[in-house]
Amino acid sequence: MHQDDPVPPAPRGGPPPPYDAPVEPVADRRGAGARTAAFGWIDAAREQRRRAGLVRTLRPRPVESPLLDLASNDYLGLARHPEVTRGAAQAAHRWGAGATGSRLVSGSTELHARLEAELADFCGFEAALVLSSGYAANLAAVTALGGPGGLIVSDAGNHASLIDGCRLARARTVVVPHADPDAVRKTLDGHDGPALAVTDAVFSVDGDAAPLRSLADGCRAHGAALLVDDAHGLGVLGDGGRGTLHAAGLAGDADVVATATLSKSLGSQGGVVLGPARVIEHLVNTARTFIFDTGLAPAAAGGARTALRLLRREPERASRAREVADELHQRLTEAGLTVARPDAAVVSVRAPSPEQAVRWAADCREAGLLVGCFRPPSVPDGISRLRLTARADLTARQTREAVRTILRTAPGA
Amino acid sequence: MHQDDPVPPAPRGGPPPPYDAPVEPVADRRGAGARTAAFGWIDAAREQRRRAGLVRTLRPRPVESPLLDLASNDYLGLARHPEVTRGAAQAAHRWGAGATGSRLVSGSTELHARLEAELADFCGFEAALVLSSGYAANLAAVTALGGPGGLIVSDAGNHASLIDGCRLARARTVVVPHADPDAVRKTLDGHDGPALAVTDAVFSVDGDAAPLRSLADGCRAHGAALLVDDAHGLGVLGDGGRGTLHAAGLAGDADVVATATLSKSLGSQGGVVLGPARVIEHLVNTARTFIFDTGLAPAAAGGARTALRLLRREPERASRAREVADELHQRLTEAGLTVARPDAAVVSVRAPSPEQAVRWAADCREAGLLVGCFRPPSVPDGISRLRLTARADLTARQTREAVRTILRTAPGA
Ligand SMILES: Cc1ncc(COP(=O)(O)O)c(C=O)c1O
Ligand SMILES: Cc1ncc(COP(=O)(O)O)c(C=O)c1O
Repeated sequence: MHQDDPVPPAPRGGPPPPYDAPVEPVADRRGAGARTAAFGWIDAAREQRRRAGLVRTLRPRPVESPLLDLASNDYLGLARHPEVTRGAAQAAHRWGAGATGSRLVSGSTELHARLEAELADFCGFEAALVLSSGYAANLAAVTALGGPGGLIVSDAGNHASLIDGCRLARARTVVVPHADPDAVRKTLDGHDGPALAVTDAVFSVDGDAAPLRSLADGCRAHGAALLVDDAHGLGVLGDGGRGTLHAAGLAGDADVVATATLSKSLGSQGGVVLGPARVIEHLVNTARTFIFDTGLAPAAAGGARTALRLLRREPERASRAREVADELHQRLTEAGLTVARPDAAVVSVRAPSPEQAVRWAADCREAGLLVGCFRPPSVPDGISRLRLTARADLTARQTREAVRTILRTAPGA
Repeated sequence: MHQDDPVPPAPRGGPPPPYDAPVEPVADRRGAGARTAAFGWIDAAREQRRRAGLVRTLRPRPVESPLLDLASNDYLGLARHPEVTRGAAQAAHRWGAGATGSRLVSGSTELHARLEAELADFCGFEAALVLSSGYAANLAAVTALGGPGGLIVSDAGNHASLIDGCRLARARTVVVPHADPDAVRKTLDGHDGPALAVTDAVFSVDGDAAPLRSLADGCRAHGAALLVDDAHGLGVLGDGGRGTLHAAGLAGDADVVATATLSKSLGSQGGVVLGPARVIEHLVNTARTFIFDTGLAPAAAGGARTALRLLRREPERASRAREVADELHQRLTEAGLTVARPDAAVVSVRAPSPEQAVRWAADCREAGLLVGCFRPPSVPDGISRLRLTARADLTARQTREAVRTILRTAPGA
């Protein structure tokens, strides 16, 4: 259910992951063998993973990777842009390698404040709050806005961080089918009190955009608020990359809150919550992942700020990422593959089976192309996929080369 | 309950924070007024905070703050050390401003791998895994190691991130009184199956160290594992700053896992889990805040790596931080204040009342000294405190000056 997942995670909300492996008999866990036995159950879990072919391994890349990258989320090609890395480096020199403490104590710098003002202005919101990651931003927003007595209505395809936010929030959560505004409406119908609908703007698996306007209408009819995670929309969708909310005419509305990450289109690290000033103030006062976390490192803030400035100057990067996605979609579809029409920069290609998806991705890598791979249980519909991400800085030649590799390695090709 | 908290958070685990403020009548929340009404309950929460005197505000600092800082967690004075900021800057130039994706897809660099090997080696553990923050590291460790059917025994004084980890984990959690190995033992007595005791190594409020040896003995008698958050111990305690686990002779044991942050003594950003290789492999495969999160930004990894190298070269920084803490403790005690004996670099000074604690901290700031302030409900025992952090790079003059300011502004002085 996540764009960054080469091999599926445990089912979300479904049956628990295979942790409940048999444990050693009590006798073995006491006394001499106790030390190694304490984590004995982990070996059983590992063995289950191995047998199911679900083992994940880290593959650290060198400075110059020989692979053509269609797996990262660096949609605008800014993570290694010399101006952006210079912005990051200068911020480290000027402000330090770390923020030194919680934003509420020693960790707020004028750099953070400027980045917040610029993000709010660019995306069209009243205020913004920067956190150490998009994950932390989602935990903060969902928990701070889903209080006790409240209701959270959450799309079944939402990102893990939104789901964990729902689990941590004191509100009741109802999970509704993917991209189903009617289901959201009906769920709100049965509730009387503060309510919050939560959705990704662009979903990880198929790269499809949420029906934001209908969702907003449904929420408004009930006086409910709408929280949208624009991790994959910022920098790609909307006028000059202002994001999915801006494109939908919802940015800055009094009942709409957005989150985003600084780690994808902005090529850096960090997360942001965008919304009415009173919501941001509420987060400053109540969100645990803001209050109890060290502020974002200056280099990350400086990198994101420079990327944002660059995007303002070169707004065509946003449309270029979409064009590359469209081109990938078109060429692969023409060649007979089943490809979801991309709403942003994520291109999802259907594979005939989980095993073939894994092999396909491995063959691509072998041939010099890095792609993502999704299979059950991390796909809600049981369909395995390759996941490609378009980048604004892919050349026509690279795009063609990627298409060629994918076709050449396709199952049955 | 947290060192970074100038004004208390909502009670942890206790009654819910004041979110359940009255909402507008349903009539007001529908139709025209719906947009502004969606977050109407927030204004009531804000009003409650205001009346209780619990409003938090951000105060962004300039590049050169005029305040003497005894509030940050930059224990070794490395966040702005030129070598460390250079390490961060060079990593940004070389590896990019961001990691570009999950560590499992495009986000693992050789820089991350080297940092992990060096952290494991320094702290005396078999393996290490770096995450985007200490908060994320704690969520990862607790959720991955507290599986269904399991038991988590959690110290009442634990950090918010450990608590959130317990809330997200599928194990049953029992909260035991602060620093009470007998209570841990008794709780384990009643359980049969995988179990995990979770504790801060050095606690935020009083800067006291956990009774790690007794905890480990108690765990071993039951075949339970021990998870220790060494956020405030790494760089300060143990031989050359190798941490609290190293000092206790527990580092590298098969049933012990440590977490730490790269944002305090190492002056950067990020978190780390340290433990047996099989535990680290288990986290790579199951921990949601690892799998579904963008890798740590190269600048943060580079900064932390440089700080670690510097600490190896100048191990006296660790003992110096402890000396400064002892000196603060001694001088303030001699002057008649009630000060907890510091086990690491956190010095906690008792205040007569919550109101006086807040005023005291404000008067210090007025006089050019930045200190932390704790009061109910964020202190378990109802006692308000000033929280000072010792730094290895404080000069004798600065320490004297800080003491003078604290004494001059003390309630009743
Ligand atoms: C939809 C979505 N939300 C949130 C996140 C988390 O952002 P970050 O990686 O900055 O923590 C991600 C990706 O990592 C994402 O894909
Ligand atoms: C005890 C403890 N654990 C964990 C954390 C979280 O670390 P980080 O700020 O790197 O997220 C902190 C401080 O922020 C802490 O004090």
